[in-house]
Amino acid sequence: MRATLMYGAGDVRVEEVADPTIEEATDAVIRVTYACVCGSDLHPYHSLEHTPEGRRMGHEAIGVVEEIGEDVRTLAVGDTVIVPFAWSDNTCVFCRDGITTSCVHGGFFDGAGSATQAERLRVPQADGTAVVVPAGTDEALMPSLLTLSDVYLTGHHAAHRGGVAPGKTVVVIGDGAVGLSAVLASRQLGAEKIILMGRHEARTSLGRDFGATHVVAERGDEGVTRVLDLTGGEGAHVVLEAVGHMPAYEQAYRIVRPGGVISRVGVPQYEDAPVGFTSLFGKNATLTGGPATIRAYIEAALPQVLDGSIDPGRVFDRELPLSEIAEAYRLMDSREALKVLIRP
Amino acid sequence: MRATLMYGAGDVRVEEVADPTIEEATDAVIRVTYACVCGSDLHPYHSLEHTPEGRRMGHEAIGVVEEIGEDVRTLAVGDTVIVPFAWSDNTCVFCRDGITTSCVHGGFFDGAGSATQAERLRVPQADGTAVVVPAGTDEALMPSLLTLSDVYLTGHHAAHRGGVAPGKTVVVIGDGAVGLSAVLASRQLGAEKIILMGRHEARTSLGRDFGATHVVAERGDEGVTRVLDLTGGEGAHVVLEAVGHMPAYEQAYRIVRPGGVISRVGVPQYEDAPVGFTSLFGKNATLTGGPATIRAYIEAALPQVLDGSIDPGRVFDRELPLSEIAEAYRLMDSREALKVLIRP
Repeated sequence: MRATLMYGAGDVRVEEVADPTIEEATDAVIRVTYACVCGSDLHPYHSLEHTPEGRRMGHEAIGVVEEIGEDVRTLAVGDTVIVPFAWSDNTCVFCRDGITTSCVHGGFFDGAGSATQAERLRVPQADGTAVVVPAGTDEALMPSLLTLSDVYLTGHHAAHRGGVAPGKTVVVIGDGAVGLSAVLASRQLGAEKIILMGRHEARTSLGRDFGATHVVAERGDEGVTRVLDLTGGEGAHVVLEAVGHMPAYEQAYRIVRPGGVISRVGVPQYEDAPVGFTSLFGKNATLTGGPATIRAYIEAALPQVLDGSIDPGRVFDRELPLSEIAEAYRLMDSREALKVLIRP
Repeated sequence: MRATLMYGAGDVRVEEVADPTIEEATDAVIRVTYACVCGSDLHPYHSLEHTPEGRRMGHEAIGVVEEIGEDVRTLAVGDTVIVPFAWSDNTCVFCRDGITTSCVHGGFFDGAGSATQAERLRVPQADGTAVVVPAGTDEALMPSLLTLSDVYLTGHHAAHRGGVAPGKTVVVIGDGAVGLSAVLASRQLGAEKIILMGRHEARTSLGRDFGATHVVAERGDEGVTRVLDLTGGEGAHVVLEAVGHMPAYEQAYRIVRPGGVISRVGVPQYEDAPVGFTSLFGKNATLTGGPATIRAYIEAALPQVLDGSIDPGRVFDRELPLSEIAEAYRLMDSREALKVLIRP
């Protein structure tokens, strides 16, 4: 089959690789019908060292079940399924807590293992991982359903862990697809004021459609001043950090209200950060977030997409065939595209 | 009057200073009847640079009102009051949120300003800050009531912000007076399992009296292994960090359960710390805590002390007159005393 491999920063190729097969009795193999490029794929696109064997890419997919292992009970060949970016058994002690990304039998697609920017995908722990889309679902809904494999529910994870609720003032840092998803999720959770920090007008315009009540284009000191102005000098109850770089983190603790929450879903491109008296501790700020526990949210979000109450698929502003995925990376890296849908 | 001044690391003296007076119409002046030395006082005791003018010390007090400003409404001369370590108006937007340590008219005793290890104390924002102890209260309860000015309610703050509740497994790092208070507060909040990490037997023994179900004397890798053993390999739902040094922070993120909470009340002696994928982010751990919002908790805790349901004053294992406070610092620094009550 054809699959996407990255050989180093900026070097993305589609090549023939071996078809995936059932390796464990709990596996399924799917034919990928929808995939996409994630903002987090741009991190290796910037920094991956030369990798002679290539790194398999992609962790978001919708597909059709082609084969199942003998222990798989809830899926049948022919089912259309959503596959979250992490697999999980959905039964272990951490899955029962809702922390499916810490599943004791879990793992992350992408990297050395199974990856979704390809024609086929091996899905470990298939019963726990894949969620069936009702037969007969309108094909036009597939982009929105695909966002339930990562981007929309990553925005939702930020908002949920941050405690977004009616009456709250929320700041979303980052106008990428995750940030815009966090805006939409915050609206769904009833936030009163949603301030989107971003400066790409096409994106912040979609952010307003998704529910942002204010847009702040400024960054750094000016950005802090603007947010404080918009919050009566008090700061935001909840700051959703959807970038992952240190300036966004610094922005976050400067605009969070005393006693407020910073919720991160941008994969941190740093390990150490300020947490002492002058950043988090002094104002009793809480820092939360992590890899989105997508699987715990899909059942609740699926009907919202099916009945049209949310349309998170609007983050896709381009579509390309798998053969042109290198162009998809380029378009997203140059910010010519917000998020590119891939049809294998 | 006599007051405690620190002139540099290890150099604590009692000297004559000017009596405090009413400076603002919202002030009160109290005669301090009970004070004490705090674990956090040991930080400058270790590291204060030579300070020719001396630094006034102390932030925990019970006293009798001697004088009130003309705007003070809720206090009368002769009232016995508990004074939290931070003053606050108890009416501003952050006080109404319960984040009294971020009061817009607030501040912290100690340091350059008013301080409690002295015969008299000026209490700013007296109506908001001081809480009256019912007339006729048994003098034997005063040590426990004094802990409501900081140490017990700092332990409670850790537990409250950490979400300690029935069914939770809690680890308390640190067997100082705040750590032991955190144990007692966790028991009050219904924790199922309370693991106290500390290696001073007299202290951990009091910790068991306060509700610790297990004591772990090991630190570092061994401490991590022991806690994981005691939690079925899962880690603790809540880790209360009552030390403030980096090894305690590192211990915390290594033993917190995926999706769990680290709540800090030890004043961090660092600004930067690990928060990235391999520490907090990867397992969706939450970091919370800060200066304890004592004032928001006193009304609920006062009756518990008065009716004997908690006895947090057991953390005081020595009592000295103000004139011997240098010895109190020495005893606490050498760990010969857990916490020393001071009678001015």
